[in-house]
Amino acid sequence: MATIYDIAVAAAINIFSAFAFLLAFAILQIQPVNDRVYFPKWYLKGLRCSPLHRGAFVSKFVNLDFRSYVRFLNWMPAALQMPEPELIDHAGLDSAVYLRIYLIGLKIFAPMAVLAFTIIIPVNWTNATLELSNLTYSNIDKLSISNIPIGSSRFWTHLVMAYVFTFWTCYVLKKEYEIVASLRLHFLSSGQRCPDQFTVLIENVPPDPDESVSELVEHFFLVNHPDHYLTHQVVYNANKLSKLVNRKKQMQNWLDYYQLKYSRNQSRKPTTKTGFLGLWGNRVDAIDFYTTEIARLSEEISFERDKIANNPRSIMPAAFVSFKTRWGAAVCAQTQLSRNPTIWLTKWAPEPRDVYWDNLAIPYVSLKIRRLVVAIAFFFLTFFFMIPIAFVQSLANIDGIEKSLPFLKRIIETKVIKSFIQGFLPGIALKIFLIFLPSILMVMSKFEGFNSLSGLERRSAARYYIFQFINVFLGSIITGTAFQQLNNFINQSANDIPKTIGVSIPMKATFFITYIMVDGWAGVAGEILRLKPLIIYHLKNFFMVKTEKDREEAMDPGTIGFNTGEPQIQLYFLLGLVYAVVTPVLLPFIIVFFGLAYVVYRHQIINVYNQEYESAAAFWPDVHSRIIAALVVSQLLLMGLLSTKEAAQSTPLLITLPVLTLWFHRFCQGRYEPAFLRYPIQEAMMKDTVERAMEPNLNLKGFLRNAYVHPFFKGADDSDDSDEAIEEESVQEPVPVPTKRQSRRYTPLPSRESCSL
Amino acid sequence: MATIYDIAVAAAINIFSAFAFLLAFAILQIQPVNDRVYFPKWYLKGLRCSPLHRGAFVSKFVNLDFRSYVRFLNWMPAALQMPEPELIDHAGLDSAVYLRIYLIGLKIFAPMAVLAFTIIIPVNWTNATLELSNLTYSNIDKLSISNIPIGSSRFWTHLVMAYVFTFWTCYVLKKEYEIVASLRLHFLSSGQRCPDQFTVLIENVPPDPDESVSELVEHFFLVNHPDHYLTHQVVYNANKLSKLVNRKKQMQNWLDYYQLKYSRNQSRKPTTKTGFLGLWGNRVDAIDFYTTEIARLSEEISFERDKIANNPRSIMPAAFVSFKTRWGAAVCAQTQLSRNPTIWLTKWAPEPRDVYWDNLAIPYVSLKIRRLVVAIAFFFLTFFFMIPIAFVQSLANIDGIEKSLPFLKRIIETKVIKSFIQGFLPGIALKIFLIFLPSILMVMSKFEGFNSLSGLERRSAARYYIFQFINVFLGSIITGTAFQQLNNFINQSANDIPKTIGVSIPMKATFFITYIMVDGWAGVAGEILRLKPLIIYHLKNFFMVKTEKDREEAMDPGTIGFNTGEPQIQLYFLLGLVYAVVTPVLLPFIIVFFGLAYVVYRHQIINVYNQEYESAAAFWPDVHSRIIAALVVSQLLLMGLLSTKEAAQSTPLLITLPVLTLWFHRFCQGRYEPAFLRYPIQEAMMKDTVERAMEPNLNLKGFLRNAYVHPFFKGADDSDDSDEAIEEESVQEPVPVPTKRQSRRYTPLPSRESCSL
Repeated sequence: MATIYDIAVAAAINIFSAFAFLLAFAILQIQPVNDRVYFPKWYLKGLRCSPLHRGAFVSKFVNLDFRSYVRFLNWMPAALQMPEPELIDHAGLDSAVYLRIYLIGLKIFAPMAVLAFTIIIPVNWTNATLELSNLTYSNIDKLSISNIPIGSSRFWTHLVMAYVFTFWTCYVLKKEYEIVASLRLHFLSSGQRCPDQFTVLIENVPPDPDESVSELVEHFFLVNHPDHYLTHQVVYNANKLSKLVNRKKQMQNWLDYYQLKYSRNQSRKPTTKTGFLGLWGNRVDAIDFYTTEIARLSEEISFERDKIANNPRSIMPAAFVSFKTRWGAAVCAQTQLSRNPTIWLTKWAPEPRDVYWDNLAIPYVSLKIRRLVVAIAFFFLTFFFMIPIAFVQSLANIDGIEKSLPFLKRIIETKVIKSFIQGFLPGIALKIFLIFLPSILMVMSKFEGFNSLSGLERRSAARYYIFQFINVFLGSIITGTAFQQLNNFINQSANDIPKTIGVSIPMKATFFITYIMVDGWAGVAGEILRLKPLIIYHLKNFFMVKTEKDREEAMDPGTIGFNTGEPQIQLYFLLGLVYAVVTPVLLPFIIVFFGLAYVVYRHQIINVYNQEYESAAAFWPDVHSRIIAALVVSQLLLMGLLSTKEAAQSTPLLITLPVLTLWFHRFCQGRYEPAFLRYPIQEAMMKDTVERAMEPNLNLKGFLRNAYVHPFFKGADDSDDSDEAIEEESVQEPVPVPTKRQSRRYTPLPSRESCSL
Repeated sequence: MATIYDIAVAAAINIFSAFAFLLAFAILQIQPVNDRVYFPKWYLKGLRCSPLHRGAFVSKFVNLDFRSYVRFLNWMPAALQMPEPELIDHAGLDSAVYLRIYLIGLKIFAPMAVLAFTIIIPVNWTNATLELSNLTYSNIDKLSISNIPIGSSRFWTHLVMAYVFTFWTCYVLKKEYEIVASLRLHFLSSGQRCPDQFTVLIENVPPDPDESVSELVEHFFLVNHPDHYLTHQVVYNANKLSKLVNRKKQMQNWLDYYQLKYSRNQSRKPTTKTGFLGLWGNRVDAIDFYTTEIARLSEEISFERDKIANNPRSIMPAAFVSFKTRWGAAVCAQTQLSRNPTIWLTKWAPEPRDVYWDNLAIPYVSLKIRRLVVAIAFFFLTFFFMIPIAFVQSLANIDGIEKSLPFLKRIIETKVIKSFIQGFLPGIALKIFLIFLPSILMVMSKFEGFNSLSGLERRSAARYYIFQFINVFLGSIITGTAFQQLNNFINQSANDIPKTIGVSIPMKATFFITYIMVDGWAGVAGEILRLKPLIIYHLKNFFMVKTEKDREEAMDPGTIGFNTGEPQIQLYFLLGLVYAVVTPVLLPFIIVFFGLAYVVYRHQIINVYNQEYESAAAFWPDVHSRIIAALVVSQLLLMGLLSTKEAAQSTPLLITLPVLTLWFHRFCQGRYEPAFLRYPIQEAMMKDTVERAMEPNLNLKGFLRNAYVHPFFKGADDSDDSDEAIEEESVQEPVPVPTKRQSRRYTPLPSRESCSL
């Protein structure tokens, strides 16, 4: 049981470390040499260029203007100054709406904290239950619900507050949903012309013996959307090509490195070994070796490109179909095309940069099987992930290592190393797993077959949240592995589960307060420091950068990382809502987290992160429903807790809460979710009409021609000439396409060369 | 514990009673006087007319041809002879597909029974567990899983059979889903031109200060579907009118009755009292009274009609919007119109006769609240319905009646009446409740706001199934009221619930066998007798029928009654699947039920029932998912049962089954359900193109003009002239409608009288 003093000490330590991070950041960020690490967004926008504006050589790298050190916290008001519309313009709607999640946290918890401190805490404090009992307790517990005597009518306060908090949370959520939905619709309608507004992704084009995919798509849409179909872009299977291009890039990096090395020290030609990682094999001249390698790869790449362009097998049964109007695209994306609902699947095309190209051609049955496999795999990952880790940990003890690798015995027996292995190795297996968890979840989502990056991130976020809920939240409350918990829950009655957890809740308050400070406060302050990108940038800068363009590439602005960031915020929502009634002392810590994180991430979004895609806040329904889930969990746990306090008369009133909350969720789903899934006809028509009036001679076909070409055809490489050929193949053909089939029913177009077979 | 002998006796009794019903039916149906009761469908089709073809007076009423009595079971092969396509043509797709449910029962359970009798029963029989134990047991139990010793490896047989049965059921279900989906699509595409193919129901038209609903709808669709919009029909609030019309009809019935009475006995003019039900008030001449009443009502009706036609307030914010092509309607029905998803709601228009007019104008929020209210009401109905009944029962005992109504004491104390009250009254309250249950559920569905009869019936069926599952199935297995069960389940662990139920399953086999015979066999045989319509028809025929048209109206063909019939069948699926592995002796009884019911209902559908609407088998997804639910329940219960038999090694294998089954369900949902929800663009286009080629000069507007007029405007009454006026009001206006608004953005049409205000 931690006392208030313990908490204060922990808080002091964490506030200090957070301040240390912020100070370090403040000092590092004003050094010109770090400018590209801390302001990459502006470089990418072309609004900032390398710090060559000062005269002295030293001042290119180190900031000698001491006045700027005084104003080291200036970035905070600066980060808050940019108004939201400008922010949307600058960093996209996704980022702006992502920041609103932190704001919601403040909006929900700040009034809650005020209410809780003026009502609940006095009610809790003015009891003597804990003093009279023989239990050990801390001052924190005196402020919590534990201090109320069993069967007391004071529990009515908590009951009423649970209602007030629920209604307040729902009110804030509804307002926010409304705002975000209108932001999204406004963004979609007022933004500039995007290819995705006119384009629908068609998957599972059925195989046809007579026609190629391209011809089939064209015929199908000329028949079924005769007035609106404009053009289409087939999808090539460029997985091998992208592998080659990546390999070439890697080689280029090495070549750059050795050339730079040679230019610095011309006395000795750098050499390398041809084998794996340059560790063994024949020793050759490095520059020659990589130059020939790159030449070979370039040739292979252009060969592969030709192959893809000319081989019909490399065309996947999917296509991006573009329409003359947004109306046509909206209609096509929302309707079913074929009587067989597993072919000719329609879906809004993701933004071109949002497309995840590898997954565009998975057949329907395979998709369903993949979903089942991943669901089962995720179940085992969540509940049994401790088994392999425990196995590794059992291997990683002294005896195990000595047995399997006897020649290491001498080294291991050294005292320092021994204590290192014993103290550090068992924990490191778990840490490594947790670091890799988001990547594992991402691989799962990729396997599952989503075809947009935003979709992948959303699904990974959902899984990460579930994992955290079970293994961090429940795992901390009821100690034991997730599997043990699962086993307990199966063997417990539906009535007892909330009780078991509910009872432990007040006892874990101090633990979670510490968790919030370490993971939340210090974590967020660490985020702004960007230690990893800082180090990598300077390494690259030193070893490989020759030109300004290389330096551009050495920057790693990173992204918001929705798949890891959002579940973390959600954990704080969960903690806040669960403890709001039980131990309100926790609330200020959460408010500080939300406030700090809001400022830090606003700064990062403005200055650092480069968005990979723009999904127009498509993630909002997920955010909303996870907060609702947290609310329901908090209500159930409160019910469990109160039922052990012999405040049984409150149960019917408490059961009403989740029912109302879930109904509210259904209501919001019906009311706002469609704005995130569908594109209203009225909007499309309005936009089309305005556009027709403003630009009557728009060449839409030209605008859409190259929009959905695989990035590796577009110019990831120097030799950009070959992709023209590929596109022409699909675009050049005149409309109508002469059919190759012997008879086609219901073709409304005259076929010029019927019976050409 | 019932022995095989008991079962045989019960079976004999029930077979006898079923035969008695069938015999009675066979005799009654060949009497010409009953012809309209047993063959109303043919009268309604105009293919049969009253039996006046014989000479003698007696033979008009009684069949004197004794040869026909010999062939009294001839209706059975006759019922089976009609091929399915002809049946679809004769009675609609709904009826034909409804019969397939019985066929599925046969397809699933017949092979299961064969396998179970050749494999499971010998395995069960060749044990001596029950003989060696001290338990009382019957021969039936010797054939069941109870006879296998605890921990025996013979349970592997049951495990394997559970897999085989699951795969077989899923296979049959998938095949059927495929067939029904293609039947539906074929029906929709090959059927004749229906107004619902061109029409979309628009609900929640937002109020507009400047324009009437009709003008608003027209403008909206001219703007947003300019190429496809054809016409629309506003919806009138005719609830008061329909009440008046019904009242007039009732009065007409009484008038007919008294006129007939007078014509038979001209000596005395019939009189009636003016008060409630003719029980008190002034005594007046009946014929005069009703004639003046009818005249008054006719006047009121025509006044009400005028009022509806001229008062804009009687126009509801909903409309049936028709399009020029099926393509246009399919597109509009599947897309979202406005950015606010709670206004301009689109939905396929139900068939004109399927529309439930009263519910067409419920706002979105009210709809959501109604749904919550009904869900809570249904929860209480299911779990607490015993409370009011127990209350009534407690009143309906001797002491209670004597206390509240002391003057009845003398009568009650009579021995016969006393025993009647004691033996019969408590049960009758429950019986009355169960008889009224479908109506109560239907009222709930109506309150919930569905706007098609088919939707109402589907929702009622779902609720009725849940009620039966909890109160009949679970209630019989674990005796006690549903609320006690609920309480037990809440206090039991997730592990124990299937165990508790699973253990009781084998013991209840004989009970369910008896249930199947009484409710299933005798019930189905009773259905064909149509006792209630028979009596009512003859009463009406005697007292009220004057003309052939009256006789026509006295017929009550009835309908299939999906809302009560389908849940009953589903209960048999549940019983069959649950007992297939545990006590396979039950299977033959279920097979007999399905076989008998198939023949009987096929006969009824061909000869009796008159379909109220045609939903093109829209109920199939419900049927499918309920069978899947039964399958999962059976798997869970088997798991519970086996885990008490110390066959724990089987648990992981048994958990796999529900996972696979649910995955299969998801798969089928994705694969086939869209065919029941959406209308593929390709189909619509095909049909449009064919039609355009076949009938280039089709007057579609004329065809659609009167399709969606409220039935009471259409000619439920004699005075049909007034509805013309109403329709003209909405149809006559020229396109484009002159706008009354001062400025309209994005109107693509030139407004002829802009600024007419």
